[in-house]
Amino acid sequence: MQEVTILTEQVLRGLVPLDQNAVQCIEDAFHALATKRVVMPPILRLDIPEHHGEVDVKTAYVSGLESFAVKIGPGFFDNPRIGLPSTSGLMVVLSSTTGLVQAVLLDNGYLTDIRTAAAGAVAAKHLARDDASIAAILGAGVQAKLQLQALALVRPIREARLWARNITKAASVAAELSSRLGFPVTAYDDPRVAIAGSDVIVTTTPATQPILLAEWLEPGQHLTAMGSDAEHKNEIAPGAIARADVYVADSLAQTRKLGELRCALVDNVVPKGQRHVELGQLIARSEVGRTTKAQITVADLTGTGIQDTAIATLAFHRAKAIGAGMALWN
Amino acid sequence: MQEVTILTEQVLRGLVPLDQNAVQCIEDAFHALATKRVVMPPILRLDIPEHHGEVDVKTAYVSGLESFAVKIGPGFFDNPRIGLPSTSGLMVVLSSTTGLVQAVLLDNGYLTDIRTAAAGAVAAKHLARDDASIAAILGAGVQAKLQLQALALVRPIREARLWARNITKAASVAAELSSRLGFPVTAYDDPRVAIAGSDVIVTTTPATQPILLAEWLEPGQHLTAMGSDAEHKNEIAPGAIARADVYVADSLAQTRKLGELRCALVDNVVPKGQRHVELGQLIARSEVGRTTKAQITVADLTGTGIQDTAIATLAFHRAKAIGAGMALWN
Repeated sequence: MQEVTILTEQVLRGLVPLDQNAVQCIEDAFHALATKRVVMPPILRLDIPEHHGEVDVKTAYVSGLESFAVKIGPGFFDNPRIGLPSTSGLMVVLSSTTGLVQAVLLDNGYLTDIRTAAAGAVAAKHLARDDASIAAILGAGVQAKLQLQALALVRPIREARLWARNITKAASVAAELSSRLGFPVTAYDDPRVAIAGSDVIVTTTPATQPILLAEWLEPGQHLTAMGSDAEHKNEIAPGAIARADVYVADSLAQTRKLGELRCALVDNVVPKGQRHVELGQLIARSEVGRTTKAQITVADLTGTGIQDTAIATLAFHRAKAIGAGMALWN
Repeated sequence: MQEVTILTEQVLRGLVPLDQNAVQCIEDAFHALATKRVVMPPILRLDIPEHHGEVDVKTAYVSGLESFAVKIGPGFFDNPRIGLPSTSGLMVVLSSTTGLVQAVLLDNGYLTDIRTAAAGAVAAKHLARDDASIAAILGAGVQAKLQLQALALVRPIREARLWARNITKAASVAAELSSRLGFPVTAYDDPRVAIAGSDVIVTTTPATQPILLAEWLEPGQHLTAMGSDAEHKNEIAPGAIARADVYVADSLAQTRKLGELRCALVDNVVPKGQRHVELGQLIARSEVGRTTKAQITVADLTGTGIQDTAIATLAFHRAKAIGAGMALWN
């Protein structure tokens, strides 16, 4: 009989808030990806088109770590019509030495939200200007809120602009964030105007056609595109990647297939053989990111299994330390 | 808040024994694979060579079914040295319409054992001679026992021979099966002798080199090879597939990459363009299997996500019907 720890979403929300520790956890994960032996297989994807649903399964093993996680992440995009969130799922923590299940994290997608927002913070930390203070967020979903909150952990944000196709929703999210984050967040009805004069931009939409054009970008800006995680998604015009002085992927194996880089390669806007850099390499200082204030930088985030392993093992260790969750002998 | 049912291995063992219903469940699954719209993505595989471990993640969605499963199946082959089974893991049942987690089946690999043995029974039911009464099992692991038990559900087995590299283990398993199954099971120290005169043969080993040669096969025999589920595994000599009058795969997409067919294709013993049949097509009667008593038939089983979805949803429905397991509001 082995002990399996069952953790509910409510417990996990208490154990792993979006804070500096979560950002550090994800920064360490990307550092490991660049410096340690990591096994990160291609994402398993199951499509259920008749219900407008998809499931991604992600995993990664970091050599030397006691545990690794497998994440089952469904996205069912008709759910909001019946009052349910689009994303849900769970993470399973397994022993690296025996494969035995150590914990089931019934997070309903919460830990994915946190590790995704934390990756945005890590990207901004290593690519945005130090003095970046005006943020523009394109999108008004859960990640729009969390990405802005995460940016404020790593840069002195004092103003934010928020655009979304649904202007009513943008206004309500902006109002909510204004009162929560302690700086003004204003809804914009034109993404171009929102972006003009911003220091750091995050696109966080399920767009399948660009919502941000290359010519809108201004010297000195940093852009994180984190909405695309599948072949059919595309948030930023391929020219924006060509225009960037620095392009950084979370995982090139993934961004070439699923990220913004995919479209840029398909359109031949970026040459196929061009060398690119990964976020972990910036953290490990084996590659350089921004070198001048005037450069335009772009981070392309598709979401990686190593982030799931990192956040899941963090949650599991914290739970063990305080005896949280339900222990089940199986 | 949604209800999630947690089921332990012990409860699952009670809910889903290896019986005619389990065989029917897996037969229906293969029938669906041949006749319904099924989405069955390639297996996700994570290798942890430093611990002699691997994890397979399998899933399948059958159009029209309310639920589908994702199975996380670790195999850590040093585990027996510390008194643990090699295989473990769990299955997660999700709603086909919302993606929400409905149940977590902490089966430690038990349901995989059952659905794998049941597939052996389905293969024998559709390929072995009706009067097959002598079985030869190569291997002495959990599946060796279950495959023989499963054969006895579909054919009038009255004698079995069991060979394994470890003759001591073979003798002890043979003795155990003799007393449990009600017919004599004898350990053999030569696989060729075990096979001679048998009607139905099952190979169930982790072999990476053939343990069964083509010239050993005799007219009228049926052979199920179910040990190979990875690129490096190989139980039967490629010539055995060429020699077979009928070759049937559980999933051709898988056996071409992971099964016995892979080696036969690599060695050019079987032409690349040759048309092959899947088990589901025999069940649906869209293809024929054995047509004469003298034919040699071979079934190549790699283990499919649709079997996992089928057995997991069976377990979940039975649990719901009797209120088994732990209901957790999450």
